[in-house]
Amino acid sequence: MDREQGFAGVMAPVLTPFGEDGAPDADRFVEHCEWLLEQGCSALAPFGTTSEGPSLGLDERMELLEDVADTVDPALLMPGTGSPSLADAIALSQHAVDIGCGGVLVLPPYYFKSPTDDGLFRFYSELIEEVADNRLRLYLYNFPRMTAVPLSLDLIARLLTAYPDQIAGLKDSSGDIANTKAVISAFPSLEVFSGSEALLAETLAAGGAGCISASANVAAGPIRQLYDDLQSGSAGKSAARVAAIREAIQRQPLIPFLKAIVAHYREDAQWSVVRPPLETMPEDVAAAAIRALADEHGFAPRFA
Amino acid sequence: MDREQGFAGVMAPVLTPFGEDGAPDADRFVEHCEWLLEQGCSALAPFGTTSEGPSLGLDERMELLEDVADTVDPALLMPGTGSPSLADAIALSQHAVDIGCGGVLVLPPYYFKSPTDDGLFRFYSELIEEVADNRLRLYLYNFPRMTAVPLSLDLIARLLTAYPDQIAGLKDSSGDIANTKAVISAFPSLEVFSGSEALLAETLAAGGAGCISASANVAAGPIRQLYDDLQSGSAGKSAARVAAIREAIQRQPLIPFLKAIVAHYREDAQWSVVRPPLETMPEDVAAAAIRALADEHGFAPRFA
Repeated sequence: MDREQGFAGVMAPVLTPFGEDGAPDADRFVEHCEWLLEQGCSALAPFGTTSEGPSLGLDERMELLEDVADTVDPALLMPGTGSPSLADAIALSQHAVDIGCGGVLVLPPYYFKSPTDDGLFRFYSELIEEVADNRLRLYLYNFPRMTAVPLSLDLIARLLTAYPDQIAGLKDSSGDIANTKAVISAFPSLEVFSGSEALLAETLAAGGAGCISASANVAAGPIRQLYDDLQSGSAGKSAARVAAIREAIQRQPLIPFLKAIVAHYREDAQWSVVRPPLETMPEDVAAAAIRALADEHGFAPRFA
Repeated sequence: MDREQGFAGVMAPVLTPFGEDGAPDADRFVEHCEWLLEQGCSALAPFGTTSEGPSLGLDERMELLEDVADTVDPALLMPGTGSPSLADAIALSQHAVDIGCGGVLVLPPYYFKSPTDDGLFRFYSELIEEVADNRLRLYLYNFPRMTAVPLSLDLIARLLTAYPDQIAGLKDSSGDIANTKAVISAFPSLEVFSGSEALLAETLAAGGAGCISASANVAAGPIRQLYDDLQSGSAGKSAARVAAIREAIQRQPLIPFLKAIVAHYREDAQWSVVRPPLETMPEDVAAAAIRALADEHGFAPRFA
């Protein structure tokens, strides 16, 4: 595997804006993707958790991906293509490969609980065999708090042995840096991303590739600055700034607040809409929290 | 709401057979549906948990439903149409209503954890508003062990108040008879099903409608006998028989074992296949367990 072809750096799980008809809004979405890249994101991970990816329909995901690939180099896209349904995960992954996506980020099937490693191996294995395309670069998505299905080191080892050219990396949203380090240490060829900028320094120090972070949707610039500073070994100031922004953001319901921030600074209330089961933040609560971010942390992103 | 139009009795969450190409097998599926009705199932719940419903693709579910509706009166069908994706849940529910299904069984969105009742209300509410068809009869599917998203009495009350003509019932797979009774007692107009024949007696005694039970896939006859005996107040013998069969079945991995039983007695090994992340039982383990069912409990279903 040629690491040059892979992903690294700061990636954003792109927020999904909804139009007044309730459907994903392609124009707002593409505009946000472009902003994220301008701000320093090295690549984009649409349809992740922060994107409300699992709340989107099969067709919605495919159409939106085609829309963004018209503008953004698809090699920079790592869409979430997981589903409890193997058939749908295959269809989404095949579609992403067909339009040239640099990778796909694949949750384990998360309806049935306590699956065995054999069952999970077979899920990923059948996906890879059915997509049957050597352009497929699959990133495992470990997020036990949402899925209740952790991906074990044994499972990763088996998959990597069976499909060394397809299993390209892993996003670890476990929040457990010991697990992230164990994966990096056991599988040096994998591109491993932490799910949070808070763990970026330790992830990079251990040999990881970067982070795929929700906060990047509004703070891509500061997080990219942190990444660059970490690379050059002088990250004290940018680390403190990113930590302060993060701490303030995490006090609110994450996805609704990120959308409220974009809505506020773009002066576009429609941006604040989330899809059920999430709830849009009450306007006054969001406004107060946004004001606090600006007043206490001087954080006021410019989307112009 | 006219109870006569609704569901009651013993229903089966129909097992989904897969063909040699890995896709759902319509011929085997329809044959099994017909057998279940002949054996005494009052109606069928395809695409439930036992059906591996969440493992099936959007198109697979629609095509299979059309295939069975060609043979079975669609008024007798209550397909599972839930999905973490509101868009897909709407598409599946609309499709089921369009082909005349008597009801739809709808899981809450199960990716995001700890949703609020407001968020869940909005999920079901938008589904009902978007389907926008007064033939829609929605059965709530409460299965916290799989979804980690329990449906509260408050949520049910709000939905029933807002949509008295659409919210028709609830399947309670919580395994908590106190919860089942609380639902029945609070909402006498709802058709409430337990998720297990083990709780059928108590559910009926409390005023519930019946059970939707995995075991019915192989033991529909004995469970129907139990239901009839309970109605006439003399269920001792059939209750003991059903309990013994259930206890033996539950010792094995449930869905793979049910499929192994069908495969064995239909002399059709293809029937034993499950989709990842579940695992097909090793043939010798299944054979021994099937033999024990026959030898110790005289249980050997006839599928001819």
